[in-house]
Amino acid sequence: MATEGKSNLSFILNKVHDVTFQDKPVPELKSDREVLVAVNYTGICGSDVHYYDHGAIGHFVVKDPMVLGHESAGTIVSAGSAVTTLKVGDRVALEPGYPCRHCEPCLSGHYNLCPEMAFAATPPYDGTLTGFWKAPSDFCYKLPDNVSLQEGALIEPLAVAVHITKQAEIKPGQTVVVMGAGPVGLLCAAVAKAYGASKVVSVDIVQSKLDFAKEFGSTHTYMSQRVSAEENAANIKKQCDLPDGADAVIDASGAEPSIQASIHLVRRGGFYVQGGMGKPDINFPIMTLCINEITAKGSFRYGSGDYKLAIELVASGKVNVKKLISQTVPFKKAEEAFKKVKEGQVIKILIAGPNEKVE
Amino acid sequence: MATEGKSNLSFILNKVHDVTFQDKPVPELKSDREVLVAVNYTGICGSDVHYYDHGAIGHFVVKDPMVLGHESAGTIVSAGSAVTTLKVGDRVALEPGYPCRHCEPCLSGHYNLCPEMAFAATPPYDGTLTGFWKAPSDFCYKLPDNVSLQEGALIEPLAVAVHITKQAEIKPGQTVVVMGAGPVGLLCAAVAKAYGASKVVSVDIVQSKLDFAKEFGSTHTYMSQRVSAEENAANIKKQCDLPDGADAVIDASGAEPSIQASIHLVRRGGFYVQGGMGKPDINFPIMTLCINEITAKGSFRYGSGDYKLAIELVASGKVNVKKLISQTVPFKKAEEAFKKVKEGQVIKILIAGPNEKVE
Amino acid sequence: MATEGKSNLSFILNKVHDVTFQDKPVPELKSDREVLVAVNYTGICGSDVHYYDHGAIGHFVVKDPMVLGHESAGTIVSAGSAVTTLKVGDRVALEPGYPCRHCEPCLSGHYNLCPEMAFAATPPYDGTLTGFWKAPSDFCYKLPDNVSLQEGALIEPLAVAVHITKQAEIKPGQTVVVMGAGPVGLLCAAVAKAYGASKVVSVDIVQSKLDFAKEFGSTHTYMSQRVSAEENAANIKKQCDLPDGADAVIDASGAEPSIQASIHLVRRGGFYVQGGMGKPDINFPIMTLCINEITAKGSFRYGSGDYKLAIELVASGKVNVKKLISQTVPFKKAEEAFKKVKEGQVIKILIAGPNEKVE
Amino acid sequence: MATEGKSNLSFILNKVHDVTFQDKPVPELKSDREVLVAVNYTGICGSDVHYYDHGAIGHFVVKDPMVLGHESAGTIVSAGSAVTTLKVGDRVALEPGYPCRHCEPCLSGHYNLCPEMAFAATPPYDGTLTGFWKAPSDFCYKLPDNVSLQEGALIEPLAVAVHITKQAEIKPGQTVVVMGAGPVGLLCAAVAKAYGASKVVSVDIVQSKLDFAKEFGSTHTYMSQRVSAEENAANIKKQCDLPDGADAVIDASGAEPSIQASIHLVRRGGFYVQGGMGKPDINFPIMTLCINEITAKGSFRYGSGDYKLAIELVASGKVNVKKLISQTVPFKKAEEAFKKVKEGQVIKILIAGPNEKVE
Repeated sequence: MATEGKSNLSFILNKVHDVTFQDKPVPELKSDREVLVAVNYTGICGSDVHYYDHGAIGHFVVKDPMVLGHESAGTIVSAGSAVTTLKVGDRVALEPGYPCRHCEPCLSGHYNLCPEMAFAATPPYDGTLTGFWKAPSDFCYKLPDNVSLQEGALIEPLAVAVHITKQAEIKPGQTVVVMGAGPVGLLCAAVAKAYGASKVVSVDIVQSKLDFAKEFGSTHTYMSQRVSAEENAANIKKQCDLPDGADAVIDASGAEPSIQASIHLVRRGGFYVQGGMGKPDINFPIMTLCINEITAKGSFRYGSGDYKLAIELVASGKVNVKKLISQTVPFKKAEEAFKKVKEGQVIKILIAGPNEKVE
Repeated sequence: MATEGKSNLSFILNKVHDVTFQDKPVPELKSDREVLVAVNYTGICGSDVHYYDHGAIGHFVVKDPMVLGHESAGTIVSAGSAVTTLKVGDRVALEPGYPCRHCEPCLSGHYNLCPEMAFAATPPYDGTLTGFWKAPSDFCYKLPDNVSLQEGALIEPLAVAVHITKQAEIKPGQTVVVMGAGPVGLLCAAVAKAYGASKVVSVDIVQSKLDFAKEFGSTHTYMSQRVSAEENAANIKKQCDLPDGADAVIDASGAEPSIQASIHLVRRGGFYVQGGMGKPDINFPIMTLCINEITAKGSFRYGSGDYKLAIELVASGKVNVKKLISQTVPFKKAEEAFKKVKEGQVIKILIAGPNEKVE
Repeated sequence: MATEGKSNLSFILNKVHDVTFQDKPVPELKSDREVLVAVNYTGICGSDVHYYDHGAIGHFVVKDPMVLGHESAGTIVSAGSAVTTLKVGDRVALEPGYPCRHCEPCLSGHYNLCPEMAFAATPPYDGTLTGFWKAPSDFCYKLPDNVSLQEGALIEPLAVAVHITKQAEIKPGQTVVVMGAGPVGLLCAAVAKAYGASKVVSVDIVQSKLDFAKEFGSTHTYMSQRVSAEENAANIKKQCDLPDGADAVIDASGAEPSIQASIHLVRRGGFYVQGGMGKPDINFPIMTLCINEITAKGSFRYGSGDYKLAIELVASGKVNVKKLISQTVPFKKAEEAFKKVKEGQVIKILIAGPNEKVE
Repeated sequence: MATEGKSNLSFILNKVHDVTFQDKPVPELKSDREVLVAVNYTGICGSDVHYYDHGAIGHFVVKDPMVLGHESAGTIVSAGSAVTTLKVGDRVALEPGYPCRHCEPCLSGHYNLCPEMAFAATPPYDGTLTGFWKAPSDFCYKLPDNVSLQEGALIEPLAVAVHITKQAEIKPGQTVVVMGAGPVGLLCAAVAKAYGASKVVSVDIVQSKLDFAKEFGSTHTYMSQRVSAEENAANIKKQCDLPDGADAVIDASGAEPSIQASIHLVRRGGFYVQGGMGKPDINFPIMTLCINEITAKGSFRYGSGDYKLAIELVASGKVNVKKLISQTVPFKKAEEAFKKVKEGQVIKILIAGPNEKVE
């Protein structure tokens, strides 16, 4: 058996800033549609760091020790008898949340809104910073030959960006502004271009991030000023030749001033998508939304078709996720990696699986 | 000529609380697609009263004397040579805003967002509290025989409600909550039922308005409490058997606490529409919108097809606008009528045209 | 146990016109989300009769003996441990097709297009003309107190009509023509009215069916003439005051001349839905579809939300399915019932379950 | 004046195969929103050749002499006083059909369906193979500096392809098959790629056209065989690795066997668009459309936003229309050019305006 002699070491958050490694039992397949996956690489997400730092996100509170991580790629080591689409040895991107398949959101094609969702590294569910991961086969997506396992670990944040961008209903030739040039903001900008956007403006408060955005694919950048939201919006319209405003604005920052500027920036009848997490309540220009008939939508994780499209965007070369990977570290350096993300030293850092060698 | 010996008396706002009557020249048709309409009845809208009281709405400021009124029905007295759909004597509801027909919003079917819109009783454009009104024939809608001219004057606010309800994308069998039981809120509730909503909840802070809403068509009512937005939302869910929240929530109040409660009340993946006017900026639960993938849309006036549907809803008996008409007064009592609306003594008051007799 | 001493007699098609009754073993629950249902009433559908008469529909061929029937309502007799929404004694409408829940159509909200669908009385799957039926709990819909079990058996064809009508994207105030006044055509007309259609025209070649349609809810009827499709379309436009054509046309007949007339009858930019089954290939006015930018859609069975809405339409009194039930016969008279449907003697006939008494 | 001493020579179809040149009066501006355009280049479309050959298309019959041509680019020579978006000297692509702006299709954003449309070179309206052309300014689209006037003449067929592709609702990552590799089919394939399609298959019966399609942007090609529609569809699925069928199939051929194969080729729940003109009635697999819930849509000319996007696709280099231009001939050789198109010697031939020099 492929797991013999292999480590199922897991990286566990006990409580705030208290992490340990523990060799847990290898999961057993219980349904004939399940597969067992050896985890090769895992990226770190802002939410992982938030649990590490605060022990909770909103009403999700870490009460018992929990394995961290949910941005992973791995290799199939065994497959249930009903699995026809995958075989042992296949390299896959792991979609890390498993819906109930029986509720109204699930049956209507919105499984990301399933109230019974079991999502990796969201209490009480363990995450993927472990040796072996059990998953339903339809939530494991085979990587094409020209997509590496490291790139595979980036499919998760790219799927987040794909979902946000879908919510924005971007059409070819449209103009898009993305607030925030962190990993998700950068990926949203790249996906918007792949959707055919003719102008993609990245906005941030850090010049080096904007420089990177320009390299990564944005056609324009704007450094937010300490002025009113209306003024920042007016500046962007002027500097980026958007006299009527942008067809779509995506917030990937969660910052109150960005959200406010966004609403003033959308053209009449245009779209706004809230992708970034931040303060639960903010001061919001509701009458501008009303009078300009703006459509504002939330975006939560990813759903049907998002992983498939994310992989296609990488395989076709339309989104070069490799550029985002600053470093890959061995499993034992997981906590160090968390600290680097927290300190903003890296764009995206990967942690190799416990059975993976890193030079 | 049908206007001979007739008064073109107009009710004019000079400045805040300063109104006069003046006999203005009868408008002349300039295009062969125009018609001249004798105004029979005009309702008063909250925005009319706002100009009377404050001389401005947002950046629309009354600088020169302006004729008030925009909710009117009238009778065709002459028609240009290219008019084929209307003839002298036809009774019509007047859509009171005329777009440019040449800009992107106009050509793409969103003329209500036209930046060159000439809208009645919105500075610098005169309104319809006058004897004779000139209009493009395609913005005059013939009333069926079973719809009276008084009902015709209610088509404008009903078209507002139709547009709001369209924005909410309500489907048969869905559940809808309407915040506010003023004229537009009541009409939204009635239209939602005509769209097939199985449950329509009206929410207000005045019991008598809720009692009227129940009579007018709402299946449930809720009196807002002085508690948090979350608590009001939770109460509505419980009292109205909406465990997952409402499919759509419409705000026809413009009140900050209502808007906040609304967002907490929408089900995951549901719709919110901002129809009511109020404070430009409010405290808003943006993360609830994000995580629950709510779609929030503004609604501004009305557009393609809205008048036609409004008339159909009245003609078919699905919306009984007559119930909303508290009183009809002669033209000379126009200011008195404004004061009654301001004081909340009436739901909807009509002012007869200057050539109309009122018993 | 609720099934003790009860018959699980089943009505089985061996081959064309060769049917038998057989007492089969009561199904055993295998998943904790399943329920066992005692079948109370089952309607007969055209497809059941087609199997009885021809032993096949398209590439679905009856090779082994198969239990017939799929339009049923029943009563819960046992429920798996994970079932929270239903309890023993609940009366339910049975949705008779069970998708895989793992393929792209299933995950994207189109489970009716699942290639692994197990549909009752479609070879090789047995149907519901049996004593006890095992089903996943989310495909059993609780009937409100004011909906009878007989009405419950009509939810299946009503769900077919709901799905067809959804495909037609009918909006309030629109005009709809339904080709065919059989059970599904009648139900489509009634659902279109519930969606707010202002004009609903039923078309057929049998006057008595049109008379019934008028009673059942259609605002207009038209008897098809032996003239060209264009002429029939022109006649309907004239007689029903549809100068620009209908917003939507639904074919519930499957007849070639009806489909041809339909396309000539849709207004520019309008909708056509193929709901009725008929010849696989027909002569079709493709250039009319092209030039008038008609949207033509197929409709296949029903999907997410359709049963729920069908039940709501019956519970609210908007669709009176009772009117369609011509007769209810005991289980032992099942074949006789099939013959009556075949001979067109009835609109809808119900067969009581083998444990049900019929006076 | 810019038209002084210039020729307004026009190329006129008197009747089938009878053409003449005539110097017509220069049009005079009548509205302050109009512009006068000197025509620089005009492409020839299949419909032009059809009028030349048959004197009619469907119920459009050439009764009086008519100027041919409608695919043109030109230069502004004068502009009405209300024109703010264009000035003398601007180079523009001409959208050649002018709707009434007052009917339901116009007001709802579907002006291409306007029943009063005045379309160039469609009887009784003259076309653009003339020296000077008068147009409403909003139907003249300024060409960016990096788009030549020759490319500008290709914007019209590209807008046709843009509209067809919009109707197909193609999303990034989807698979698309285009039937026909003539100019419009080639452009549809290129636009589909710009919409993010991951696989674009061109199908034709001429190998050289398929070779060109491969160069122009299609990822796969298929030579239609003299086999049944089902077999051709099955072959394409196999050869192009489309096991479930294509997300969208576009017919740009108008050929009966292509349309039949298309319907068998669309995946369950996928889209089909009829773009090509051909026989009015064909044998059509209607039950496949029904059971697979295919959406089939017509596409007619172009509408709101299509010219804008077409220009953007050329300016951004996403669609290289220059590759399609086989030759440019002087105005006096217009008839020769028509003959070359008729004989299939060229992909796209341009006729220079009468005041234009061609080397």
